[in-house]
Amino acid sequence: MKHMVDLVADLGEGFGAYTMGDDEALLDVLTSANIACGFHAGDPRIMDATVRHCVRRGVAVGAHPSFPDLVGFGRRAMELTPDEVRTDTLYQIGALRAFATAHHTQVRHIAPHGRLGNLVATRPDYAEAVADAVESLGRSLIVLAQDGALADAARARGLRVGIVGIADRAYRDDGTLVPRSEPGAVIHDPGEIAERTVRMVTEGVVRTVGGRDLPVECDTVLLHGDTPGAITLAHRIRGELLADGVRIAPLADVLDAKAGATASDARPGDATTGVSA
Amino acid sequence: MKHMVDLVADLGEGFGAYTMGDDEALLDVLTSANIACGFHAGDPRIMDATVRHCVRRGVAVGAHPSFPDLVGFGRRAMELTPDEVRTDTLYQIGALRAFATAHHTQVRHIAPHGRLGNLVATRPDYAEAVADAVESLGRSLIVLAQDGALADAARARGLRVGIVGIADRAYRDDGTLVPRSEPGAVIHDPGEIAERTVRMVTEGVVRTVGGRDLPVECDTVLLHGDTPGAITLAHRIRGELLADGVRIAPLADVLDAKAGATASDARPGDATTGVSA
Amino acid sequence: MKHMVDLVADLGEGFGAYTMGDDEALLDVLTSANIACGFHAGDPRIMDATVRHCVRRGVAVGAHPSFPDLVGFGRRAMELTPDEVRTDTLYQIGALRAFATAHHTQVRHIAPHGRLGNLVATRPDYAEAVADAVESLGRSLIVLAQDGALADAARARGLRVGIVGIADRAYRDDGTLVPRSEPGAVIHDPGEIAERTVRMVTEGVVRTVGGRDLPVECDTVLLHGDTPGAITLAHRIRGELLADGVRIAPLADVLDAKAGATASDARPGDATTGVSA
Amino acid sequence: MKHMVDLVADLGEGFGAYTMGDDEALLDVLTSANIACGFHAGDPRIMDATVRHCVRRGVAVGAHPSFPDLVGFGRRAMELTPDEVRTDTLYQIGALRAFATAHHTQVRHIAPHGRLGNLVATRPDYAEAVADAVESLGRSLIVLAQDGALADAARARGLRVGIVGIADRAYRDDGTLVPRSEPGAVIHDPGEIAERTVRMVTEGVVRTVGGRDLPVECDTVLLHGDTPGAITLAHRIRGELLADGVRIAPLADVLDAKAGATASDARPGDATTGVSA
Repeated sequence: MKHMVDLVADLGEGFGAYTMGDDEALLDVLTSANIACGFHAGDPRIMDATVRHCVRRGVAVGAHPSFPDLVGFGRRAMELTPDEVRTDTLYQIGALRAFATAHHTQVRHIAPHGRLGNLVATRPDYAEAVADAVESLGRSLIVLAQDGALADAARARGLRVGIVGIADRAYRDDGTLVPRSEPGAVIHDPGEIAERTVRMVTEGVVRTVGGRDLPVECDTVLLHGDTPGAITLAHRIRGELLADGVRIAPLADVLDAKAGATASDARPGDATTGVSA
Repeated sequence: MKHMVDLVADLGEGFGAYTMGDDEALLDVLTSANIACGFHAGDPRIMDATVRHCVRRGVAVGAHPSFPDLVGFGRRAMELTPDEVRTDTLYQIGALRAFATAHHTQVRHIAPHGRLGNLVATRPDYAEAVADAVESLGRSLIVLAQDGALADAARARGLRVGIVGIADRAYRDDGTLVPRSEPGAVIHDPGEIAERTVRMVTEGVVRTVGGRDLPVECDTVLLHGDTPGAITLAHRIRGELLADGVRIAPLADVLDAKAGATASDARPGDATTGVSA
Repeated sequence: MKHMVDLVADLGEGFGAYTMGDDEALLDVLTSANIACGFHAGDPRIMDATVRHCVRRGVAVGAHPSFPDLVGFGRRAMELTPDEVRTDTLYQIGALRAFATAHHTQVRHIAPHGRLGNLVATRPDYAEAVADAVESLGRSLIVLAQDGALADAARARGLRVGIVGIADRAYRDDGTLVPRSEPGAVIHDPGEIAERTVRMVTEGVVRTVGGRDLPVECDTVLLHGDTPGAITLAHRIRGELLADGVRIAPLADVLDAKAGATASDARPGDATTGVSA
Repeated sequence: MKHMVDLVADLGEGFGAYTMGDDEALLDVLTSANIACGFHAGDPRIMDATVRHCVRRGVAVGAHPSFPDLVGFGRRAMELTPDEVRTDTLYQIGALRAFATAHHTQVRHIAPHGRLGNLVATRPDYAEAVADAVESLGRSLIVLAQDGALADAARARGLRVGIVGIADRAYRDDGTLVPRSEPGAVIHDPGEIAERTVRMVTEGVVRTVGGRDLPVECDTVLLHGDTPGAITLAHRIRGELLADGVRIAPLADVLDAKAGATASDARPGDATTGVSA
């Protein structure tokens, strides 16, 4: 079977008069987008425009809910109750869904942002809160997550889960990431990142700091657009994946294919389906 | 034909640790609720709880979008562009719809709050912005408005419109309200308010300051819960309407009946239908 | 020497159209006020009015800075850096000082609010951040704190410190508070609270759960105004202190007296001095 | 007498993770800065850093208060009461003063931002509200304004006023600006802007669209840093002023000189005085 993977990035992270990242350039590369919903970034105009651009380019729309911390860009931990996490998540997904409906598309996935995104991987209470929010909106939303508590909670509820591969972080032999506080935790060499991405997608492994090939899942690859060289790297990753025969498609299609169904059968008439390499 | 009317009030207008109004007491009286969506009041916990309580009591859920002005409670005019009004409205309706979905109901209507609510009655650009937002979400949402620009814009788009009768304000012979700056603009006597409400609903007229009976529409009556005596007055209005043989029902049923359809035919299996007196 | 103590409470904790607590009733009882500065509660109108009322009643004005979390009322921990704590504190004190200047008084003390208030008692980095902020504004501001890290950091910088006695919490023999999660952590009986307050002030001891009399400092007593019976309890505490011969005075006077100076010598012409029982 | 003028720009207009303009480059050119205070832009970290940079470069610190509208960047009119304008202004000036104190300097002037800045030129009620706020903080703050209602209100209270010259806008013969909606309202040619600036400062006139030389005051020139070419233009304006023998100095010195005092007599020991060309 031909390998498939989704390419996703965080979009719409400006606010009011402020801009962040180069969304326009990223839209050429992506098949899915995590769109800020106003709690760490984004506002109704930016959400509207970002969804419109995604629809025009055939990029699948996803919600990127956050802790309510605009000044901290959602990067600071907040001691919310699980019910606060659940209701904040519902609010943000709902807001984005209105723009999706207005642009004749649907919110396809949800990927918690920043510090919330880190915490749902390790805190079962937050993971269950997010999974509860998604479940209460119906089973069509895919949960995009690292392998961890959120992926587990979503699967336990019968929700579809897309695992994001992390190509620019060093892994230990036990499968955990080398903490950022240690040297070598983050990989900066574009060639190495691209190569690791291709191996994750085509071989399902990543080379650990101990030199072993560790099995990993990778339904989607997180790209960036907000640092120098990021767009170039994004294109390089996409190019190397294509050169290796990988089909690049929206996350729903990747998961459908994985589930044994062909994408074209599973979602006839779906405007975002059929975006291929 | 038996007269029908909806009873509506603004609910969920607390914020965080703050409370506003006596929602619990109002829920005994209402058939519809305008629920704050976070821009002038309300937060995800309050929205969640308010929708839950509405569903339990059979009260239809509506969105109450506002200018983005928490400290001003949405009561101060803001010079937004029509596109800002449209996108702010989409965002707020969307957020509330998530809670409606989570509680197995739907957002039935939209009623702009406070100063935005005043301005959409007179500014065609804002009226069209709100109507565009509603139209882009599909045709199921009812626009609740005073007779004015928003009602016109909604009808022009084929949207259903519910007209709110204003029983506690004095009317001139030409159909305009006596401005608040003039003496006698606001009617305070509970008996007079109740009587005017009944005439609006059963006879379709209101007595002007010039002593004429002016024809008015009244699909829904706006009740209040945040002043001393408000709950008592709300019960009195409901009681006098019932005593006069008026059927009190959610706005959708009132409009269905007006359109010649019976409520029971129009919406089989609708959980909030059939709330009757 | 006659015993002296300050009576303080949190004031100005409304926001926009929202009210919180019964400030008017509390102002009859207090000699100092912790005034919200807009991050957890309070807005410029409320700050202005609260300072004005304090000046009229001879109540000393203090700043009550918080984590930036309006919807959480400052009760949720946020993982701020110490520099974020320092600069947020400066901002809030500065804002309140403008209103103090406009009303011809000064901000006399600072008392961190809510969760920040808890954390500065145990986290040296946050304690130093707050103490640095105070120090950089000059040495006239008193730091109001529980015995703990903030009090230590303030003293290390040569700042004046007022220790708040906690009469409604149970103490262990080792001087730590019984955690709220354990039964008996909070004392609810008004008579017991009043009696414990008097002993703290006049004898400098509190009875532990183990039955020992533990030495404690108590320069100021924290009263509340936002629960049923709170105003009655506040008056009772004040009355019992006066009946026991305690002089009730603003915190600066209490500390001056403690330092061996008489209040009248130390601060001639000070408008808030001389508020006595 | 040698001509003197202040060079001012809006600084510190980022927010959280967002940046705006090139403050670093502007600091080489300026003698004064309008620093955002958190209502339209700016946060406590940015305010702290901006004041620190100003002090290091000898740039005088000013407050740049705004309507409370972060998402609108303070550019949208809001129907505030005069008391809301007064108290919002106090709050923002106070917040900035804390950072000034912490960095051993003072807030020298206030210049309302964006839409508030436009409105105080024409609305006497808003002008008086701002002037009242400044007056209540003492008479040391200079009001930086266009010729108009705020300048009048400030002078009526005995406050010092610095008039900002607007070199890139076309003037009519009657002294009013050509509205932005008309062609030719904004002058884009750098050479023309620089020349008009020099004439305003050295001759006290500006050429109108009717071809007349209209007398204008110009104590300070507003430079920009947020558009392509803005920094180059700022340097050019500074260079041409210096080449024409103009002394460039902080606003307080300009006003002192105008008042007949020499700057060195008027403010001995003032750290920001003596910044000269």
